[in-house]
Amino acid sequence: MIPSDCLVVVVGATGAVGREALAILESRGHPADRIRAVASARSAGSTIPYAGSAIQVSEAGPASFAGARVALFCATSDIARTLAPAARAAGCAVVDNSSAFRADPDVPLVVPEVNGPDVSRVPSPALIANPNCSTILLLVALEPLRAKFGIERIVVSTYQAVSGAGAAAITELQQQASEMLAGRAPQPKVFAEPCAFNVFSHNSAMDEATGLNGEEKKMISETRRIWNDPNVEVSPMCVRVPVVRAHSESVSVTLKHPASESEVREAFRGAEGVVIIDDRKGNKFPTPLQASGTDPVYVGRLRADPGSKRDSAGRTRNHCLFLSGDQLRKGAALNAIQIADLLAK
Amino acid sequence: MIPSDCLVVVVGATGAVGREALAILESRGHPADRIRAVASARSAGSTIPYAGSAIQVSEAGPASFAGARVALFCATSDIARTLAPAARAAGCAVVDNSSAFRADPDVPLVVPEVNGPDVSRVPSPALIANPNCSTILLLVALEPLRAKFGIERIVVSTYQAVSGAGAAAITELQQQASEMLAGRAPQPKVFAEPCAFNVFSHNSAMDEATGLNGEEKKMISETRRIWNDPNVEVSPMCVRVPVVRAHSESVSVTLKHPASESEVREAFRGAEGVVIIDDRKGNKFPTPLQASGTDPVYVGRLRADPGSKRDSAGRTRNHCLFLSGDQLRKGAALNAIQIADLLAK
Repeated sequence: MIPSDCLVVVVGATGAVGREALAILESRGHPADRIRAVASARSAGSTIPYAGSAIQVSEAGPASFAGARVALFCATSDIARTLAPAARAAGCAVVDNSSAFRADPDVPLVVPEVNGPDVSRVPSPALIANPNCSTILLLVALEPLRAKFGIERIVVSTYQAVSGAGAAAITELQQQASEMLAGRAPQPKVFAEPCAFNVFSHNSAMDEATGLNGEEKKMISETRRIWNDPNVEVSPMCVRVPVVRAHSESVSVTLKHPASESEVREAFRGAEGVVIIDDRKGNKFPTPLQASGTDPVYVGRLRADPGSKRDSAGRTRNHCLFLSGDQLRKGAALNAIQIADLLAK
Repeated sequence: MIPSDCLVVVVGATGAVGREALAILESRGHPADRIRAVASARSAGSTIPYAGSAIQVSEAGPASFAGARVALFCATSDIARTLAPAARAAGCAVVDNSSAFRADPDVPLVVPEVNGPDVSRVPSPALIANPNCSTILLLVALEPLRAKFGIERIVVSTYQAVSGAGAAAITELQQQASEMLAGRAPQPKVFAEPCAFNVFSHNSAMDEATGLNGEEKKMISETRRIWNDPNVEVSPMCVRVPVVRAHSESVSVTLKHPASESEVREAFRGAEGVVIIDDRKGNKFPTPLQASGTDPVYVGRLRADPGSKRDSAGRTRNHCLFLSGDQLRKGAALNAIQIADLLAK
């Protein structure tokens, strides 16, 4: 845990992830006077409710980090590139939610349940990158299988909430749903496609040569970096669905060593950050609505691949699962705070 | 085409699929007096608008088929089992949309683009089963690849519209979305889970031993039957999304013979029933909203699997695609009418 006397700077405090970071610090009882909320000039002067009182937002700048021990950057890559050096020069560790440093070999990319010890391989004040939301959720869910059986290949199709595109996207989904229910044609602004009552290929820019969008490229490269395994085969299809804030993923995984379904279930026993919801009789499995606003990655639909051959003990290398997790919490703000917890140790 | 003097019986004319069948016959100019619309006693006496006039609905019974050449059964499995024998005894061919006969080896299960000639392997009056909607859309999209390279394995995750659960499910989605936008908690009735702003594992009953739901079992067994290939490995994850009427599917396919991405694209040239939407530069790909109310299966996101090794000519056995198609049209009513077209030949 971040000690309660530690001054924490939240950069981008008025955005969707920044607000979530403040909500988590509030629920942990971190004192209001040990938080500095900073944002763009446009938001400076506004206040954010916190623990029965309010925190005033000031303009983010190089002076924002004086006396602080850790800064949670919940802003754009540009802001991270501009202000992270100033923060570190002031002796303040940085956990960055943007993609600015995710590919930098000198910056650990960390999911605490997976490669937590990597935070200590850099000198202090540390700069640590928080991975992409879909990658975090996927790797938390797969860690028990990777640890026990090894993983050779992942085929993953995502069902991603609009919140990943920011607060304006949530408003767009809600307003567009209203309009369409009233029989009016959707007028997309944030996304190129209508987002209400629709599904569409992820809106991040696409690489024309490979046919992979930005989100898919992150899932491939970040998985390899976090696992320190350049050979793992990752085949993602990233898709937006009309859900407000939690992501889901349908995962087909090829293990290095074959396992039976019960061995897979056994591997999940006590898994950090994972809650199993897998009630076949009641047809109850993870959903993004139920995951919203909560911390765990929910995993269900666990089964040995129905098409794959099995040995006499029922073992196969191919297994399936479905997961849901709140992309603003474990997919972003919570993971960043858990990294700060590790730095505080 | 079904000849215009041919009397067509639509069983279950007031349901979602029955209405779609009538709309397709209307758009083809099939005369109103050559259509007999029948349904349950509850719906008998109602009228359905048709070509500027109206068709009266009568109660379905053994006498409904006198003088008819073909009956489109758009009702439950129970009704199909009860009335299909009466229809055939009256000399009327039956195309059944339910799952009543889909596993019967004496009843061809037909997707015209894939195994159309199978309709002629049974004596007349024929009984032909219309496959499950998700299976139809998948197999139309994959046929060009199966024909040219062979297919060994399919991993598919679905994004299924609520319309597959009938007209009441569409109403539930719309009413629930309204309620949730007004800040009220969802009250699920048709589905066990909230369907608005949510995603959930398909609502069909689950086999506790295998962990596969009914929809997934159909996709596996029907693909094997239609392809007449008991060895093809099919690994489906069926999921409902808050979309009104068209289904989408994320597909990872393992070919029997390796192909380059351009060879895969070439295979789709002129493919029957398929329209390619694959604009990487403009980030435009198939969506269910755009597919709704139209006939083709739309295919895009075509790419060689990014994780798989390729030979020096860029060939690999693993490829990806995304598809959207209207489950009420090609996924149900249109496919049934296309089967009737083949029977009329």
